[in-house]
Amino acid sequence: MKTYQEMSKEELTQELTALKAEYEKIKGMGLALDMSRGKPGADQLDLSMGMLDVLDSKTALKSENGTDLRNYGVLDGIPEAKKLIADVIGTKPENVIIYGNSSLNIMYDQVARAEMFGICGNTPWCKLDKVKFLCPVPGYDRHFAITETFGIEMINIPMTENGPDMDLVEKYVNNDETVKGIWCVPKYSNPQGVVYSDETVRRFAALKPAAADFRIFWDNAYVVHHLYKEDQAQILDILEECKKAGNPDMVFEFCSTSKVSFPGSGIAAIASSETNIADIKKRLTIQTIGHDKINQLRHVKFFKNVDGIKAHMEKQADLIRPKFELVEKIFSDELASRGIGTWMHPLGGYFISFEAPEGCAKEIVSKCKEAGVVLTGAGSPFPYKKDPKDSVIRIAPTYPSLAELEQAANVFVVVVRMVAAEKFLAEK
Amino acid sequence: MKTYQEMSKEELTQELTALKAEYEKIKGMGLALDMSRGKPGADQLDLSMGMLDVLDSKTALKSENGTDLRNYGVLDGIPEAKKLIADVIGTKPENVIIYGNSSLNIMYDQVARAEMFGICGNTPWCKLDKVKFLCPVPGYDRHFAITETFGIEMINIPMTENGPDMDLVEKYVNNDETVKGIWCVPKYSNPQGVVYSDETVRRFAALKPAAADFRIFWDNAYVVHHLYKEDQAQILDILEECKKAGNPDMVFEFCSTSKVSFPGSGIAAIASSETNIADIKKRLTIQTIGHDKINQLRHVKFFKNVDGIKAHMEKQADLIRPKFELVEKIFSDELASRGIGTWMHPLGGYFISFEAPEGCAKEIVSKCKEAGVVLTGAGSPFPYKKDPKDSVIRIAPTYPSLAELEQAANVFVVVVRMVAAEKFLAEK
Repeated sequence: MKTYQEMSKEELTQELTALKAEYEKIKGMGLALDMSRGKPGADQLDLSMGMLDVLDSKTALKSENGTDLRNYGVLDGIPEAKKLIADVIGTKPENVIIYGNSSLNIMYDQVARAEMFGICGNTPWCKLDKVKFLCPVPGYDRHFAITETFGIEMINIPMTENGPDMDLVEKYVNNDETVKGIWCVPKYSNPQGVVYSDETVRRFAALKPAAADFRIFWDNAYVVHHLYKEDQAQILDILEECKKAGNPDMVFEFCSTSKVSFPGSGIAAIASSETNIADIKKRLTIQTIGHDKINQLRHVKFFKNVDGIKAHMEKQADLIRPKFELVEKIFSDELASRGIGTWMHPLGGYFISFEAPEGCAKEIVSKCKEAGVVLTGAGSPFPYKKDPKDSVIRIAPTYPSLAELEQAANVFVVVVRMVAAEKFLAEK
Repeated sequence: MKTYQEMSKEELTQELTALKAEYEKIKGMGLALDMSRGKPGADQLDLSMGMLDVLDSKTALKSENGTDLRNYGVLDGIPEAKKLIADVIGTKPENVIIYGNSSLNIMYDQVARAEMFGICGNTPWCKLDKVKFLCPVPGYDRHFAITETFGIEMINIPMTENGPDMDLVEKYVNNDETVKGIWCVPKYSNPQGVVYSDETVRRFAALKPAAADFRIFWDNAYVVHHLYKEDQAQILDILEECKKAGNPDMVFEFCSTSKVSFPGSGIAAIASSETNIADIKKRLTIQTIGHDKINQLRHVKFFKNVDGIKAHMEKQADLIRPKFELVEKIFSDELASRGIGTWMHPLGGYFISFEAPEGCAKEIVSKCKEAGVVLTGAGSPFPYKKDPKDSVIRIAPTYPSLAELEQAANVFVVVVRMVAAEKFLAEK
């Protein structure tokens, strides 16, 4: 098959005419499909329904240390939930605070408290003229929304296949004391599926920040979200690496069971150094009396331990792996073969990050919408929703059924071909 | 029986000697009792255990509008939970946002967002030189902790039997634009059990605040927490009264099921005007994807409707009413009869607010502690923990068993008598 780069003007014209006809036909079908949402499918959620049976009116709702979990108290989580989450992310229970249902809320809180009260005695960020965050791109739109809402200046850091461009990260962090944080999704990054290499993690740990209150916001959202049994990424424990490098307080690590049990009804946690945990608890005790301990117990009883979570995630992987493979196959056959799009092959996480020819993403998303296929907005994976190359489109394959996904992906590839053909033709 | 005021120096000396001997005997008993905690007793929590049976793996976890409650989404609560809470506090579902497990956390968030972003387009409080809150006293220590943590200046407003001293409230609110809020527990106030009269509520609604962003923080914590079937307080709907008075946006109302179902595993809510709700949601959508919808459904299925909640609360009242009555009887027999203490007879809520002779509260709390009876710290019900008269002691009768409570109350009255006798003697 000829790539679009190789096609003559005539060939491209012919291709475009055929694609336009096909597109019109698709538009007439009245489709209503959605590849925008990073949500588990109903079949994945079905796997957690047993969680509703592990507690009943006969259960003694006591923690292993005897606390009555039905009553007030326990600011930082019940011991058995701390252990479970610590084992999941590979740290110690004493480094963990269990919150409510949302790790995003914990991240917002961390930024909000830094703004209002400062981190560990440092100047509150709201008193500073300028606060900057580094944002590896493409990244997670809700991270960027938090920093944007506080008026924090966001700086794009390009991603490589090993993680963020560390030369650039070091340049900023080690020299600019207005740089106070960086958003990271170290394993199966949103949206590319990048796994941070050991070297990347070690370079993070070895940073020499100009700002005493610089923190790495380490969103380990996909820590157990492998797609393949035989090819599971492991990343180094950033807390441990930072400690070894003499930067014990440099990291806030986040995780949740949102895409393990039930989104919205899971448990979320932060892990950090003893000093940071004490700093957080000093304020947290004003914010709340405690989080939902019964739901913490429910999770512990259902999963039992980290192996239970891993086994559960294998079942989920069996459900979503075919979806990822289907999309990748259609993209390979229809787009890569024509030289009009690239992506990284993800080994886990929730997304495929498709890179269209430059200047095409917005048009593709818009044309797909017209044809009844909703995609994540072009630009979403970038600060201020501005993709400098107008190229990245985040594909979320988990929520639709396989049949819907096939239909949606087939519409998508026709639209990409049409928009790319137009672009290449205009440049001839 | 003679009151201490009526006793001669000799009689008081004799009384004190006897009490000191009794106190020493009590100290020798090695008691470990606690009347400090506003927590439900285990028997109250037992009443909610059925809540763990209303959902199981066979339940369709759908909202009445078809939403899959197991997945992401629904920022402001499922419709049936909004209706339940609206009926409890007497407002409309569209005025309600259902949150997670803690109304305290909602209040903190409201103050935090006002500080960081301002209310409805007004200047963020953190940019102002001075922000003040009115604090009816005695009041709830955790309210005061929130305003203190933000450096908000707190002004004591004396409570009357009809609510806060409204002359003073009007004077401050209508003339001082740095006064941005007031903490209210309008029904069965913490700790006195005061019920705001209709006139008080109407005077609140008719305020003419100097500050456009003045808000009443209306913590309707004990809305269904009656002690008696035949004597249940009703207060006017502040949202409706404010609307009628032309101040539709002046109130944030809070409530939760913390002392209805399970503290820590209940649902909490804010109710406010359409304008305020829209202002809140604009930021809330950055903070979180949504709260625990399955727990919302669990509450709706268990209680069914507001009548279900009322019936449930009657059962709780049957358990705690004898505790309140026991404490009041011992106080009447041993203290009121001797002229050394007053309190209001509460018809609901969680506390009895004992007022010792001036200058005695700290000493009483300290001497009780020495004898193995823990009380809420003297000063706690006041901003900055400073009781100007050193008189108020908050008694929490719900958590101990009746037998423990009787023992604790009997120690308490001996200590009050001893400390009061010493004081009266010193003044002879």
